[in-house]
Amino acid sequence: MQNLTPSSVAGQAACLAPVADVHDAGLQARVQHQLDIKTKPQGSLGRLEALALRIACILGTESPVLQQPQMLVFAADHGLAARGVSAYPTDVTWQMVQNFLAGGAAVSVLARQHGLDLHVIDCGVARDLQASADWQPGQPRLWACKVAYGTQDCSQGPAMTLAQCLQAMEHGAQVVRQLPGNAVLLGEMGIGNTSSAALISARLCGLPIEQVTGMGTGLSPEGVQRKLAVLRQVLERHAGVEQPLDVLAALGGFEVAAMVGAVLQAARQRRVVLVDGFITTAAVLVAARLQPQVLQRCVFAHCSGEPGHALVLRALGAQALLDWQLRLGEGSGAALAWPLLPAACAILREMASFAEAGVAEKS
Amino acid sequence: MQNLTPSSVAGQAACLAPVADVHDAGLQARVQHQLDIKTKPQGSLGRLEALALRIACILGTESPVLQQPQMLVFAADHGLAARGVSAYPTDVTWQMVQNFLAGGAAVSVLARQHGLDLHVIDCGVARDLQASADWQPGQPRLWACKVAYGTQDCSQGPAMTLAQCLQAMEHGAQVVRQLPGNAVLLGEMGIGNTSSAALISARLCGLPIEQVTGMGTGLSPEGVQRKLAVLRQVLERHAGVEQPLDVLAALGGFEVAAMVGAVLQAARQRRVVLVDGFITTAAVLVAARLQPQVLQRCVFAHCSGEPGHALVLRALGAQALLDWQLRLGEGSGAALAWPLLPAACAILREMASFAEAGVAEKS
Repeated sequence: MQNLTPSSVAGQAACLAPVADVHDAGLQARVQHQLDIKTKPQGSLGRLEALALRIACILGTESPVLQQPQMLVFAADHGLAARGVSAYPTDVTWQMVQNFLAGGAAVSVLARQHGLDLHVIDCGVARDLQASADWQPGQPRLWACKVAYGTQDCSQGPAMTLAQCLQAMEHGAQVVRQLPGNAVLLGEMGIGNTSSAALISARLCGLPIEQVTGMGTGLSPEGVQRKLAVLRQVLERHAGVEQPLDVLAALGGFEVAAMVGAVLQAARQRRVVLVDGFITTAAVLVAARLQPQVLQRCVFAHCSGEPGHALVLRALGAQALLDWQLRLGEGSGAALAWPLLPAACAILREMASFAEAGVAEKS
Repeated sequence: MQNLTPSSVAGQAACLAPVADVHDAGLQARVQHQLDIKTKPQGSLGRLEALALRIACILGTESPVLQQPQMLVFAADHGLAARGVSAYPTDVTWQMVQNFLAGGAAVSVLARQHGLDLHVIDCGVARDLQASADWQPGQPRLWACKVAYGTQDCSQGPAMTLAQCLQAMEHGAQVVRQLPGNAVLLGEMGIGNTSSAALISARLCGLPIEQVTGMGTGLSPEGVQRKLAVLRQVLERHAGVEQPLDVLAALGGFEVAAMVGAVLQAARQRRVVLVDGFITTAAVLVAARLQPQVLQRCVFAHCSGEPGHALVLRALGAQALLDWQLRLGEGSGAALAWPLLPAACAILREMASFAEAGVAEKS
């Protein structure tokens, strides 16, 4: 098990350091020109060209190479789960963490398939987790960053204190800081966390809670109505809480807060951030309200079947790569979409220009 | 250069041999059950599950493994191009073939990136093509299957004779027969071939020609109107031609006919056929009108920016994997989308069940 250094927990404000604006009109124009002179009609690779341009601008180069992509799955439990907002029992959180580490979960399979290093970050799972004693490079890795054994029930009060919130954020930042490579993929696990994402999205985007509340892992229509009634109570309980950090602390969860810290840190380091589904997007939303420049570094892997996701993506001005009605979380959509990113980079680096290939241009 | 055996050209009717119905309700139910007991809410991997099911049913196994995928780019010239239906000169066809072989085209880059063997099939390019004398395994390969130096101008008469049409189809089938693996990806190159695809689609689907006529490689709005006027003339010239093979011969081109043969052959061998854009889909349309069962074996990689593509996909009851506004052809969209297929197979083969992983089920 990977333990964070004590200094990481002490310097909690580090995770709130500014994220620079990396917009470089000159670079953008040069990359666009490179794309335009390649042997194809201008713009004919559609969104693949836009993706190549985006990654080049994140990495600050006309010849982007994605290196050592890190798949991070942030896990924690939610006090609100006791209110029956999920179709699954809370124990599934730690059971799925074990499944991630054992290699049997969707994200495990897809990370292995696509050469992604897999990390599971225990941000606050309601059980002591044991990492394998004989961890080997290339195997999934468990990080011990527990803030508490799950958040408090946010229908009764804040899910966490501001200090806990900053601690979870710093943990997320610290994990990213310790990892190699120039790309991180975000995923999460936490029974009850579509509720957190719905609450955060409703509050920060001003969206009606019924528009962002869905079946999660598989609630019945009656279950969705019960969940919605609980979420309405929670929002009333926290009426007037509007600032991003306050919203995050009030509505949870620890894995969401850790992802906010991870996004901010990855953005400061100009890593490409590949965002998964509704819950990871809610974390990006909080990060973007703190530091709008983080959105320059984000690529959104898919638009999920959870109804709030499309609305939050729209609020962020984002368009997702895939529209496959995934609603699993774990980072499964990010891991699935990953190969599209190196493909975009290869187009930019390796395609010949009309002049190089001796091909006639448009008449 | 790979030459076809003389027997292949002699036995032209072989390409019309029946394609069996491989629907197996028992297998389908077993695969669906395997997907349902995996550690995720049922259906939560959305279209990835549907893709896994589709591939399993094509290959006839609960544990599908895609092997030695073959990227086939069929190239030919079009007599109709002399009527100004394309933004690019006809010479671009052979120049792009050289670019495919030299490794500088989009499909070359993406095939290399994704481990696809790349084959370029000269079905009727209007120039003698020279393959590299020092071809090595792993390099792009040129196949000599020229029927003629381009089709006839179909505004004056049929693009090709029925004998030529069958010859091109048999060439396509013969190429597939000689290749290893259980998956083929279809692509094409031919200045003027969005016109062929539009004409075939309009005639076989009963779609208005203006709905399936687009900018192709980049015509101006005025250019599209000129193209449309030519295509209307062509359809009038071939009024009453309705049977799939007659339509194919009348409206061309050789690369489309070769793809029809390739699809039929791949389907007979239960290979997975990954279809690229508008022109390859038009070939699948012809193949499906000849042998409806071919559609059981097809996966549609993307919905292109060419307006006819979405309409033909709908007519075929197909939903594409990506919607990225690609409009290049070459097989670039198929090569781009390829990793999604082995990812789907890995999910089916490698994900743990609830029982295997010791995860609690839905409460």
